[in-house]
Amino acid sequence: MLQIIYCLQSLFLYYMMAALVNGFVCKDPEEVKADDFFFMGLDKPGNTDNKVGSVVTPVNVAQIPGLNTLGVSLARIDFAPYGLNPPHTHPRATEILTVLEGTLYVGFVTSNTENRFITKTLHKGDVFVFPVGLIHFQFNIGDTNAIAIVGFGSQNPGTITIANAVFGSNPPISDDVLAKAFQVDKKIVDYLQSQFAIKN
Amino acid sequence: MLQIIYCLQSLFLYYMMAALVNGFVCKDPEEVKADDFFFMGLDKPGNTDNKVGSVVTPVNVAQIPGLNTLGVSLARIDFAPYGLNPPHTHPRATEILTVLEGTLYVGFVTSNTENRFITKTLHKGDVFVFPVGLIHFQFNIGDTNAIAIVGFGSQNPGTITIANAVFGSNPPISDDVLAKAFQVDKKIVDYLQSQFAIKN
Amino acid sequence: MLQIIYCLQSLFLYYMMAALVNGFVCKDPEEVKADDFFFMGLDKPGNTDNKVGSVVTPVNVAQIPGLNTLGVSLARIDFAPYGLNPPHTHPRATEILTVLEGTLYVGFVTSNTENRFITKTLHKGDVFVFPVGLIHFQFNIGDTNAIAIVGFGSQNPGTITIANAVFGSNPPISDDVLAKAFQVDKKIVDYLQSQFAIKN
Amino acid sequence: MLQIIYCLQSLFLYYMMAALVNGFVCKDPEEVKADDFFFMGLDKPGNTDNKVGSVVTPVNVAQIPGLNTLGVSLARIDFAPYGLNPPHTHPRATEILTVLEGTLYVGFVTSNTENRFITKTLHKGDVFVFPVGLIHFQFNIGDTNAIAIVGFGSQNPGTITIANAVFGSNPPISDDVLAKAFQVDKKIVDYLQSQFAIKN
Amino acid sequence: MLQIIYCLQSLFLYYMMAALVNGFVCKDPEEVKADDFFFMGLDKPGNTDNKVGSVVTPVNVAQIPGLNTLGVSLARIDFAPYGLNPPHTHPRATEILTVLEGTLYVGFVTSNTENRFITKTLHKGDVFVFPVGLIHFQFNIGDTNAIAIVGFGSQNPGTITIANAVFGSNPPISDDVLAKAFQVDKKIVDYLQSQFAIKN
Amino acid sequence: MLQIIYCLQSLFLYYMMAALVNGFVCKDPEEVKADDFFFMGLDKPGNTDNKVGSVVTPVNVAQIPGLNTLGVSLARIDFAPYGLNPPHTHPRATEILTVLEGTLYVGFVTSNTENRFITKTLHKGDVFVFPVGLIHFQFNIGDTNAIAIVGFGSQNPGTITIANAVFGSNPPISDDVLAKAFQVDKKIVDYLQSQFAIKN
Repeated sequence: MLQIIYCLQSLFLYYMMAALVNGFVCKDPEEVKADDFFFMGLDKPGNTDNKVGSVVTPVNVAQIPGLNTLGVSLARIDFAPYGLNPPHTHPRATEILTVLEGTLYVGFVTSNTENRFITKTLHKGDVFVFPVGLIHFQFNIGDTNAIAIVGFGSQNPGTITIANAVFGSNPPISDDVLAKAFQVDKKIVDYLQSQFAIKN
Repeated sequence: MLQIIYCLQSLFLYYMMAALVNGFVCKDPEEVKADDFFFMGLDKPGNTDNKVGSVVTPVNVAQIPGLNTLGVSLARIDFAPYGLNPPHTHPRATEILTVLEGTLYVGFVTSNTENRFITKTLHKGDVFVFPVGLIHFQFNIGDTNAIAIVGFGSQNPGTITIANAVFGSNPPISDDVLAKAFQVDKKIVDYLQSQFAIKN
Repeated sequence: MLQIIYCLQSLFLYYMMAALVNGFVCKDPEEVKADDFFFMGLDKPGNTDNKVGSVVTPVNVAQIPGLNTLGVSLARIDFAPYGLNPPHTHPRATEILTVLEGTLYVGFVTSNTENRFITKTLHKGDVFVFPVGLIHFQFNIGDTNAIAIVGFGSQNPGTITIANAVFGSNPPISDDVLAKAFQVDKKIVDYLQSQFAIKN
Repeated sequence: MLQIIYCLQSLFLYYMMAALVNGFVCKDPEEVKADDFFFMGLDKPGNTDNKVGSVVTPVNVAQIPGLNTLGVSLARIDFAPYGLNPPHTHPRATEILTVLEGTLYVGFVTSNTENRFITKTLHKGDVFVFPVGLIHFQFNIGDTNAIAIVGFGSQNPGTITIANAVFGSNPPISDDVLAKAFQVDKKIVDYLQSQFAIKN
Repeated sequence: MLQIIYCLQSLFLYYMMAALVNGFVCKDPEEVKADDFFFMGLDKPGNTDNKVGSVVTPVNVAQIPGLNTLGVSLARIDFAPYGLNPPHTHPRATEILTVLEGTLYVGFVTSNTENRFITKTLHKGDVFVFPVGLIHFQFNIGDTNAIAIVGFGSQNPGTITIANAVFGSNPPISDDVLAKAFQVDKKIVDYLQSQFAIKN
Repeated sequence: MLQIIYCLQSLFLYYMMAALVNGFVCKDPEEVKADDFFFMGLDKPGNTDNKVGSVVTPVNVAQIPGLNTLGVSLARIDFAPYGLNPPHTHPRATEILTVLEGTLYVGFVTSNTENRFITKTLHKGDVFVFPVGLIHFQFNIGDTNAIAIVGFGSQNPGTITIANAVFGSNPPISDDVLAKAFQVDKKIVDYLQSQFAIKN
């Protein structure tokens, strides 16, 4: 088995790859430019014309390559009136949210076996924290649009929307599994899956 | 010099030491004993007489205080015939599973927006990995009991069972939120919630 | 099982639990409440009536105890017209900024021996990244107020304002040191120090 | 000196390499398949027909490439009657062991200057922890085969068998060094080395 | 968005690249040799014939490729009589220094808002710690040469010399910004910048 | 705001603060003083009048409480002529060594199954790296004293001297185990153990 942990790049590889990683330089510093750290458009409302009435505009390492290894990212969330950012988790980051406009009812659920549901109604300027990996949501309880800005403690937090992952995966999870998991008969599972079939 | 890195404070030690955690010694090494690193009973089948027909027996820092700061733990999972360890996530650890007895159909779903469902049927001696924070399940597809042993890359991985966290939280998540999230009317949500009401 | 990972010890809990930090639970989950994860007032403009014409309103673990161990925080920065958030570093976090109002000229300087100065003019909705530990600033180049929200990849990023740390420390750094460091005579150093004497 | 820490991959490199690392995607998700997370054969007894009467079957990132960056792995250990998994360390991981069959006498030694030897006799279903980097062993004290499953808090824990590393390295460590280290004359060292000469 | 975090290298890439990183092997172990871990010349005095009368000889991953991922490095600092290692920070590492020859007056400044200046006069054999990211300096207050050896908790600590980064960047920071930051008029800023213009 | 990240709890502070570790402040910053970061005496030769002719003088968090959480430490190693710092490992840190005086023959052994022995003869000013957890030694091959300074990437690296841990533990490891591990009869084991019996 291999066992020396390190990265001895020949000069040749170095120039070829621009990808040395692991705490060391990747892009030739001569080539670094401001745009590697830049993104524009977070002031633009996202399109909330969808079934849940909300949309997330991410600004992470996929949008800003200079964020790689730096452990932080942002996103904007837009909500139509009564729009919902449905229950979801971030597998690799805690989220901290502040409300720019509107009134959000937010909550997260603690893990087994308590499953405590902890909620707060947030107004403009309020800040709330959703610990890493816990299921949470934000719901616009006002009749105007709402906007939030969120920070993540990862350059690549990931998002798992529960309904889509459970009832809208590709291919679908067998209804045997879901019927037993949710303690309902398969017809209800099939109906739930049909709601998410097109999306995926 | 002190050298056991973990945090088993008896109240007495606690007052005496003023030397707690974070890479430094917690328990007076003179007081460390083998039982701080020991647990017994993982050979005993758990009681699968419940609605999903499966049960997890954890062996983490809550059972073995000497695991603190050491970043690993185990669990045993028992399955009745057709028992299901229902869709869940571990917010702080990847899981690696091996089948001791029986045949398990397992899967996990990748994050947005692909939501790819990746599955495998596992037999005795097979090993499978569930990456940190992703929704996954194990289903005993045989008519005999099944047993798995799993390792986690955390001394305190946590578990979020999706159905319980979403439909069985305490207090319940409002059916306005869940109806919109799952794109169904509130009656179905209320029915789903009623299936988990007692448990919590 | 316990599952909220953070460290809000009431004194009472503190004595009771002997189960503190480092990846393990600190506050009795029964005692966790929404306010442990909450802060209000980030919509309120900070008072920019000071010599540099800017002010930072932090929202980190000092304001939200539930952030402990979770690795992320926020801040709001207000700028008067031509206000400057002067050159500074965060010793423990990368910063990602988005402009809510106004036009900011921002920049950071890479480390030795290049000391490359990388700049960008940011408008409403633009996002920019300041890598961990590098000297950076934001300057309102418009004649209206400007507002930015920033995310940090630490619950406790810290801030070192260069002018204050170098010329306004308490007690002052000897002018022998500073005259040699900045290659000027002591009178200029003394003058620079006199500008920051009151502040500290 | 280079100083910007990040990984700006051109699209070209991205597709060429499938190796971006450091918290970011490596394999094109379209290409990910279940077998990347799968291994079979951990139910098969290893061949213990060797001088110590034990054998380890590892299941780590060398066997399951999908484990990379995920921080956990497994192994199976087989023991002939009175077989020994001789004193060794894992330089990058804590180990947690559970006994599937048989009776193991296990122990680890704390670091300088106490060198406390902490032991336990483990029966079927018992669990024991060996903290990262400490010398430990498992000895089958029964006259039947024994089997253990172990978890590691690393995808690549490494193993250093003390006798082989000290007396069986390639090339051998000079007997001047070893005679002084073990406070014996060179003949004894040479004899010890001769026991491991073939193996390497 | 991509979301599976791991590194599945085809065999082809594996051999081509010798750069797998992130906790896994990079150089083919067959190719590892002692010189990958070796550097010579730290006994040689650096040339202190410069404006500040000091020079740093680094020994980090740029000099020893085998250090990559291993999280530690060294440097030697030489001081002419009354030489100064001017105020600077290391964005990615704490520094621990020991004096080999001479007498150093050292200090660091804590972060906002205290900006406490913590100092010590160090003699041969004294050791002092400069916490990660804080501004610090070392000043030879004797009329003989001084020598220090320092350790860093990173294989690539980086160095930001305050005067060079602020007044000697390439291109220069606008004197509007610096005049406001240092609360002096632009002539003084221009004068300060002129002291560092050639160097960069 | 608090900003010194370390954990020097006087008992008094301990009770007062309820704000311990894990990336957050421990000691009241008002109470932090230079001596919390200071150690003296590393210029003094250690006493090498022992069986191996070498001695290590550590400077880690046990000597400098301000090092806690900061991830680095130092040590001085003195060697009598032909003195040996015998084969040992550091379970939690890589070591980087520089020779101040004398000539050292050094080496480390890679892990299973290669067990490659990688060596170098070091002269004054040479630097060498010993990767985390690997068995290594330093041998003074000159007829004068030798001195080395080493850096560790941990505030608490720990040391496991192989001979002492294996043959000199308290209580002793059974000679059944050691005879099988080292493939020799118990008399040789007993003799080896007798060499270390007094020391522990």
